[in-house]
Amino acid sequence: MTPAAAPTDDTPDARLRALGLELPAVPDQPPGYAPRPIVPVVVHGTLAFFSGVAPLELTGTVGADMTVDEGYAAARTVGLMTLRRIVDAFGTLDAVERFIKVTGYVRSAPGFSSQPEVVNGFSDLIIEVYGEDRGRCARTAIGSSELPRNIPIEVESVVALRDTRAGG
Amino acid sequence: MTPAAAPTDDTPDARLRALGLELPAVPDQPPGYAPRPIVPVVVHGTLAFFSGVAPLELTGTVGADMTVDEGYAAARTVGLMTLRRIVDAFGTLDAVERFIKVTGYVRSAPGFSSQPEVVNGFSDLIIEVYGEDRGRCARTAIGSSELPRNIPIEVESVVALRDTRAGG
Amino acid sequence: MTPAAAPTDDTPDARLRALGLELPAVPDQPPGYAPRPIVPVVVHGTLAFFSGVAPLELTGTVGADMTVDEGYAAARTVGLMTLRRIVDAFGTLDAVERFIKVTGYVRSAPGFSSQPEVVNGFSDLIIEVYGEDRGRCARTAIGSSELPRNIPIEVESVVALRDTRAGG
Repeated sequence: MTPAAAPTDDTPDARLRALGLELPAVPDQPPGYAPRPIVPVVVHGTLAFFSGVAPLELTGTVGADMTVDEGYAAARTVGLMTLRRIVDAFGTLDAVERFIKVTGYVRSAPGFSSQPEVVNGFSDLIIEVYGEDRGRCARTAIGSSELPRNIPIEVESVVALRDTRAGG
Repeated sequence: MTPAAAPTDDTPDARLRALGLELPAVPDQPPGYAPRPIVPVVVHGTLAFFSGVAPLELTGTVGADMTVDEGYAAARTVGLMTLRRIVDAFGTLDAVERFIKVTGYVRSAPGFSSQPEVVNGFSDLIIEVYGEDRGRCARTAIGSSELPRNIPIEVESVVALRDTRAGG
Repeated sequence: MTPAAAPTDDTPDARLRALGLELPAVPDQPPGYAPRPIVPVVVHGTLAFFSGVAPLELTGTVGADMTVDEGYAAARTVGLMTLRRIVDAFGTLDAVERFIKVTGYVRSAPGFSSQPEVVNGFSDLIIEVYGEDRGRCARTAIGSSELPRNIPIEVESVVALRDTRAGG
């Protein structure tokens, strides 16, 4: 006899565990910073708009004192922080039906033009955890001369939440 | 005898008056500029997307010829201009249920990294007028090497409108 | 006898033909580039969010080795590419009810401040094809020190799709 409703557990949360990834803590109020008049995420209907997420311990400029690979790693860290923000806000990664739009700002040295390869660190992680159908999304990657706290990258996301209003 | 339905008047409009704040005029077509093929705001359902708002009389670069405090003041001016845009479009500040997402672009000198402190001038004003629950929102603050007309800051907003379709 | 339901053909598709405009091919995967973990557009309800569109053959910095007119022409090319993206995604330009929000990033030389005049190349084209009511939208135009592949401009769009769920 097979179970009537065996849990498949093919969820982003399960995939995160299978990948052995740990989500870093992301305090709303980082130590040493003044209180900021913002919130991590705002929900409107089934859309969720996230504040820009930044790797607060890292500083640098990609193409100057950071390589593309180091920028990619920083973007992956921002991806893990964004996943933490999702869990903190909604309890489970599975609350996000899919990523809709990502904007990546890369602090760039003069002439540096590989912003997409840097932001891929974020996008690749999201796809590892959510799969192609839910993780691949619209994106804009641009260079920025300066970013807050001299961070090398900042990424903001708009995601679709599962519609739980219909019951079922 | 007390009124059956005394108006509480705890609206953003009333708070604006109580704060003694005046909203500047914000012409769609500033004097001396060519007509622009854009509109101040577009509504879709209960979402309203605003064009970037800029302090057209001001020029400067924060961290070079403007201090953080001067940038904060410029951001506050942009906040007042955004409130005027709301009144012009919807008749009352109370038409906005809450701010959802703000993006602040700060024209930044090389090495300047306090963009959040500058954009706080916008966010703090919105919270003064709308209160914490309606005014605190998701935000991204980034640096920009150049902005139109050499303005020091430009802020765009996405807001939720009250749903008036349900009657009541 | 007049036709009972003569097609007016006052559609964006017909206007595009009347203007004699050709839409360029826009490969998801440009030749010579590594596969990117993104998609051109994501639909959520009647909103469609596009990835940033860039003129992949062009490089330059407006205000340095490109004039405003050349930047305007590049922005118009990005507009044509965006129209192609719409046709590729939805079969017809008429699937888009209206443009909601456009963000234009212009790679800018130090001191260059005419980003709006550059992005007008995009906006003017959209209005030629969609008309004022559907083409004029909210917009933010900003300068960027560096963009991917040294392109001079990148434009992202949020549009409203016709609601076809209601039948009719």
